[in-house]
Amino acid sequence: MSLTAAYDPQNVFARILRGELPSVRVWEDEAVLVFMDVFPQSEGHMLVISKTSQAQTLLEVEPEVLARLAAVSQRAARAAVAALGCEGVSLMQFNGAAGGQTVFHLHFHVIPRWSNRRMAGHGEAGMADPAVLAPIATRLAAAF
Amino acid sequence: MSLTAAYDPQNVFARILRGELPSVRVWEDEAVLVFMDVFPQSEGHMLVISKTSQAQTLLEVEPEVLARLAAVSQRAARAAVAALGCEGVSLMQFNGAAGGQTVFHLHFHVIPRWSNRRMAGHGEAGMADPAVLAPIATRLAAAF
Repeated sequence: MSLTAAYDPQNVFARILRGELPSVRVWEDEAVLVFMDVFPQSEGHMLVISKTSQAQTLLEVEPEVLARLAAVSQRAARAAVAALGCEGVSLMQFNGAAGGQTVFHLHFHVIPRWSNRRMAGHGEAGMADPAVLAPIATRLAAAF
Repeated sequence: MSLTAAYDPQNVFARILRGELPSVRVWEDEAVLVFMDVFPQSEGHMLVISKTSQAQTLLEVEPEVLARLAAVSQRAARAAVAALGCEGVSLMQFNGAAGGQTVFHLHFHVIPRWSNRRMAGHGEAGMADPAVLAPIATRLAAAF
């Protein structure tokens, strides 16, 4: 069962993992990378991806990879509260084009929320300047 | 670190777990319950909750409970594709009132998506008739 075609090694996140495209990195270990979404729906919007799995969606991801991604998403949410003082966190994960997915390498969105700031819609946010994202990533990294 | 006050044993999901409020159940084991969201953002919208943890948010949930909720959310997503033929699945999880949370018992939303149907916004959907949800739950259960 699949919502996608074959894994495309030229997808943007695969290229980031290979260092072929730049990214503003927050935290990583041997299995997981956390980096800043360059189309942030709010300040501190992070993406959590596997460095080892070619799963495109939640449907096909290996159980141990899923557990690890969920655990790191929890750490990212805690870091957002500690580092940015956000009042809430939204976790989102989209599968298939009809499900809102645009990059076909499984990823979790960790989106800090504040009661007095509107969250931009998915696919609605503008592109951020990496120079603006970098100091936010530094603060998040310190809280990881 | 917390985004919430103390766990309220009168929250709606705790009452559902105790059988004090009705729900349209899809699947359960000793640790996890999957049931139909009575305010469905799309056909087949399910909620995945722990039966054992009083965690209100992602931030404080126990690692083993989180792993189990993620694994069952994956099963729910697969069941949605198999049973309903949806073309995508959105996974959402909200923490803190500012993060969109309305019931303070940790829960994952598993929302089937179709390219030609609009997903209702969170908190925007009307209340569904349990008699309409029941046959959908039966189809989902058969695919679990």
